[in-house]
Amino acid sequence: MVTIKDLAKEVGVSVATVSRALTGSGYASPDVRRRVLEAAERLDYKPNEVARALNTSRSNVVGVLVPDITNPYFPKVIRGIEDEAIRNDYRVIIGNTDNDQKKESKYLEIFRQNNCAGIISATWSIEHKAYSGERPLILLDRVAENLPSIEADNLKGGRLQAMHLIERGADKVLVIKGHEGYSSFDDRAVGALETLETQGIEYETLAYRQLDSLLSNDKLDDFTRFNGIICPNDVTAYKVLNGLRALDIAVPDAVKVIGYDNLDFSEYVHPSLTTIGQPIYELGRNAFRMLMDLAAGKPAPSQVLNVALVRRQST
Amino acid sequence: MVTIKDLAKEVGVSVATVSRALTGSGYASPDVRRRVLEAAERLDYKPNEVARALNTSRSNVVGVLVPDITNPYFPKVIRGIEDEAIRNDYRVIIGNTDNDQKKESKYLEIFRQNNCAGIISATWSIEHKAYSGERPLILLDRVAENLPSIEADNLKGGRLQAMHLIERGADKVLVIKGHEGYSSFDDRAVGALETLETQGIEYETLAYRQLDSLLSNDKLDDFTRFNGIICPNDVTAYKVLNGLRALDIAVPDAVKVIGYDNLDFSEYVHPSLTTIGQPIYELGRNAFRMLMDLAAGKPAPSQVLNVALVRRQST
Repeated sequence: MVTIKDLAKEVGVSVATVSRALTGSGYASPDVRRRVLEAAERLDYKPNEVARALNTSRSNVVGVLVPDITNPYFPKVIRGIEDEAIRNDYRVIIGNTDNDQKKESKYLEIFRQNNCAGIISATWSIEHKAYSGERPLILLDRVAENLPSIEADNLKGGRLQAMHLIERGADKVLVIKGHEGYSSFDDRAVGALETLETQGIEYETLAYRQLDSLLSNDKLDDFTRFNGIICPNDVTAYKVLNGLRALDIAVPDAVKVIGYDNLDFSEYVHPSLTTIGQPIYELGRNAFRMLMDLAAGKPAPSQVLNVALVRRQST
Repeated sequence: MVTIKDLAKEVGVSVATVSRALTGSGYASPDVRRRVLEAAERLDYKPNEVARALNTSRSNVVGVLVPDITNPYFPKVIRGIEDEAIRNDYRVIIGNTDNDQKKESKYLEIFRQNNCAGIISATWSIEHKAYSGERPLILLDRVAENLPSIEADNLKGGRLQAMHLIERGADKVLVIKGHEGYSSFDDRAVGALETLETQGIEYETLAYRQLDSLLSNDKLDDFTRFNGIICPNDVTAYKVLNGLRALDIAVPDAVKVIGYDNLDFSEYVHPSLTTIGQPIYELGRNAFRMLMDLAAGKPAPSQVLNVALVRRQST
């Protein structure tokens, strides 16, 4: 690989002069600058990003925190981030936190040690003190006071879930809540419950951690009491559909099931899943753009993207 | 952030001395070394990885190339790589190539510019010259002469697919091939076709790029000629199941369908998918271990992991 030393030798000036000519910081005569740039082109010199990161104390690497990349929601978010990053000549390092604050803290430290230009976090929880103010930070699917964030309209999504089940005739609804402490799941539940209340519909709620025991206990009654089930995401809905099938409960005739996310798979499950469509790729893409704005000292107002009902066979 | 300069000031020695004391390269008296390490501990000094990368000309970043992270096979591979990387204090940069050699070349250049310690590539194709010999390289799901690789036993997997359909009574089989030019897909097809030949079973093959037009043309005949369909991966099988459902062709009664990968979703589609189980997470994990061996100058013999039939309702 051609180094800055090779360029200096080729042009017959010092390494420091080549550096000034290349970066435009400090003085280099127009003639020297021209000769350096010509040599760089001729020798196919590629700036070493590690050296650049050291000089500027910001690398062109962005850190992204997700709970778990094998949850199929996140690859699409990450693809949105990564496509936009590569267009802007940035790289992405991903950390899987498994919703574990120790892992999260470790990654934050790693991002600092790598001079990351910024962080996009989909795992931020309000109690977490490990995020320092040093780096631009964008919250994704998470909201906190005084921090720029991007999410889809979870409140509206929750309302759409409830309204649709009601319109389809459900009047005894089970609302399965998502992981606790996450604003996105909290808002979905608030939107759904508010709507069920207003419309005078009977409902019960189930904490996410109780789902597996409900699905495995084989008690038909636990499900046949309901004719509508609101799920916090599509993956949960797949599990519910499987559980109902195992109990021979007909969907949508006996129970209507609605998911949230509109993952690609939701058209492949059977019955295909009615759900709330989120612009997942755009969440990632826009998060990266906001981060670039912040890093450039520009304002990056929080964004709330729109959601829409995607009607299929499960309701 | 505490820098090496702060440590030098604290201890009252030069930056070069601190550096020698911390890295153990070059002379520093035992007393100075002890004082530097104590100061590092007291001030919570974290070595700057960028600076370290510059000094050693190898960073602790590993580059991983995949066709597309939103294909649900790859997040699990990446999780295996990433978990093992973090245990070894390495970071992972991911590149999505979309099977486009230009994008692939760009990422390889980026990896070099970031002084990546090595590359794991799941997109390598034999014609591609852009991989230089500079960095340790492990091929994943790809095989090439003289390069260390890791894959699951695709030949055996293809054989298992065909044998199972035959055992289930299929005697007119459609073999859908995967993307061309990839040894993993080629080997699966070879294994399946070889078995069908040996057993004297009628078959036809379909190129992957023709699948969508077959699925959208609505000609029942194109499918009812077959009573068994071998798919190159699970995602293809989901599409096929959907297509058959749209045409009201009963699975498994009229046609038996088998996939390949055993993705989590394959138990959620209906009918649930019979498939070939690959140790996907382990492929990623072992690939990283091989890369570390190579980087340490140790031998890293190619690995072929075992596969197994996972029987469900689609056959």
